[in-house]
Amino acid sequence: MAESSELTLQSLGERETLARILPLLPGSSQLTVGPGDDSAVVRLDTPEVVTSCDMMVEGPDFRRDWSYPDQIGYKAMTSNLADIAAMGAVPVGVIVALAAPPETPVQDVVGLARGIAKGLTEMAPGAGVLGGDLSTAPVLTLSVTVIGNLEGRDPVLRSGAQVGDVVAVTGEPGRSQRGYLLLEEATRSHGEFLPAEARKELVSHIDVAHHLAPSTDLSRGVAAAEAGAHALMDVSDGLVLDATRMADASGVSIDFDKDAVVDDAWLMGGEDHGFLATFSADQPLPEGFHAVGRVVEKTQDLPVTVGGQPPTVERGGWDPYRDSK
Amino acid sequence: MAESSELTLQSLGERETLARILPLLPGSSQLTVGPGDDSAVVRLDTPEVVTSCDMMVEGPDFRRDWSYPDQIGYKAMTSNLADIAAMGAVPVGVIVALAAPPETPVQDVVGLARGIAKGLTEMAPGAGVLGGDLSTAPVLTLSVTVIGNLEGRDPVLRSGAQVGDVVAVTGEPGRSQRGYLLLEEATRSHGEFLPAEARKELVSHIDVAHHLAPSTDLSRGVAAAEAGAHALMDVSDGLVLDATRMADASGVSIDFDKDAVVDDAWLMGGEDHGFLATFSADQPLPEGFHAVGRVVEKTQDLPVTVGGQPPTVERGGWDPYRDSK
Repeated sequence: MAESSELTLQSLGERETLARILPLLPGSSQLTVGPGDDSAVVRLDTPEVVTSCDMMVEGPDFRRDWSYPDQIGYKAMTSNLADIAAMGAVPVGVIVALAAPPETPVQDVVGLARGIAKGLTEMAPGAGVLGGDLSTAPVLTLSVTVIGNLEGRDPVLRSGAQVGDVVAVTGEPGRSQRGYLLLEEATRSHGEFLPAEARKELVSHIDVAHHLAPSTDLSRGVAAAEAGAHALMDVSDGLVLDATRMADASGVSIDFDKDAVVDDAWLMGGEDHGFLATFSADQPLPEGFHAVGRVVEKTQDLPVTVGGQPPTVERGGWDPYRDSK
Repeated sequence: MAESSELTLQSLGERETLARILPLLPGSSQLTVGPGDDSAVVRLDTPEVVTSCDMMVEGPDFRRDWSYPDQIGYKAMTSNLADIAAMGAVPVGVIVALAAPPETPVQDVVGLARGIAKGLTEMAPGAGVLGGDLSTAPVLTLSVTVIGNLEGRDPVLRSGAQVGDVVAVTGEPGRSQRGYLLLEEATRSHGEFLPAEARKELVSHIDVAHHLAPSTDLSRGVAAAEAGAHALMDVSDGLVLDATRMADASGVSIDFDKDAVVDDAWLMGGEDHGFLATFSADQPLPEGFHAVGRVVEKTQDLPVTVGGQPPTVERGGWDPYRDSK
């Protein structure tokens, strides 16, 4: 233990680092050619491939004094896997590009790999790591591409919402934002960084844990598709901004029920990765979804309203270029 | 022009940056759901998906005083597309994650996109950009995942080389390394960085141009597969190291003809992305391949020899953690 805690990527080298990571990662049962060749080969059930990509960079996307490495790996799975489920598809596997400074402790990368493995096993059993790349960078950088399988279903787009539809969500919107605010407050009270002891206390708080390593039930995405959802997406940037995107893509407006709104975080908070969907009003909602509003005729300059009124909060969301330091 | 040369990612923002990049990028004819939804959907001809990933980070992988942005984009295509062709597959499209400092000129990112488009159009006509992500990072970081289609062929692995096979390559191994050495020498003569004027002069040198934006004929990979190649890979890290990998995976040794060896760069130089393959000795080589050696019985501790003797050069290759400052 003492020995391994001092080992860095530089002292261990790429080959030995890989040798410690690869056994931790689940393979995919659909992988016919695995790591070690120029490319991996995966056999799907159908010729339709769903793919998405999400990058996480230390600084804008996570802080090392807030997140343990396994939480960073887990969260990278959540954001990517949810994008696949948000089409009504099932994740088959991920391709992981990881860059880190040479002085990074090997234990941190092993932690990342454990988080990736845990995320896949918990949220997408059967999906594995199909390939990847290791490199160096000034800060920890994780780029994940995910591949999914529609299993013969049609993809559910964000552009299909119809006037009269019920708007429904899964999970508890705003939890991640509430956790973020707790972390921010605790950090401010200590100065610039959150001390390890303070983090240890905070990390068991349900909202903080959810912010650092959000979990989402991906089966809800497939269930929505099978129930004939007209529009479907995952909530990455907060309900107001994501509903605005759905409304704009569909040429409608979305009105949230006043009673559904829990707090500002419910409207604005991102990174929950639950699902936002619209369904015909005359059908029961699939399990896990609860109604939070209705699709209405497009209102000029008001793609999203709350009880017919403009939301009282900023639209939320985050521009990586404008909003970073 | 004057206006746009001063624009940065920060002043323009993500949305407007995307609006300038997206029209430059070729789509794929196989894309059934394009950018703008949670995921993209691609329809392949067959249910077998080939995938690979390669990350390029400013510093270890490229220098801004050597490479123009379009060359960085082009090179990212070459290294990724070659990994698909090295299985005997045809590239369908790429997913591009790009992170850059907020103060990066928008023109640089537009240049990158142009290079990506040029690489796809020249080397993999029909393949397009399937999706991507934009983020911020302390240095320019490009992570590309590529998806390919075997069109019903079996993948050609690096583990299939058989004793008695002819070893053959495409292209001119060592060109990239020769260009690298010219750039390194010119830089040293000027101090730490290569001045813009000196770069302008050097960039038209055929080996320098090839190092900065290597082009490879991907159809050779498919041709090798169709000709029944026993083993196939692209040469990323130099012939000695890549042949060592092929020999080790196949349980054989590879002996290069003395006469085939042009210089040390031929043996050690990486980043050419031509193909290394082995074929039955009793068949004609496919067009573009020339014989450079033979597969022989595994020799203890000598996976690769030149005229039966140990190579007189280092094995080449590069460890991102050990070899970066």
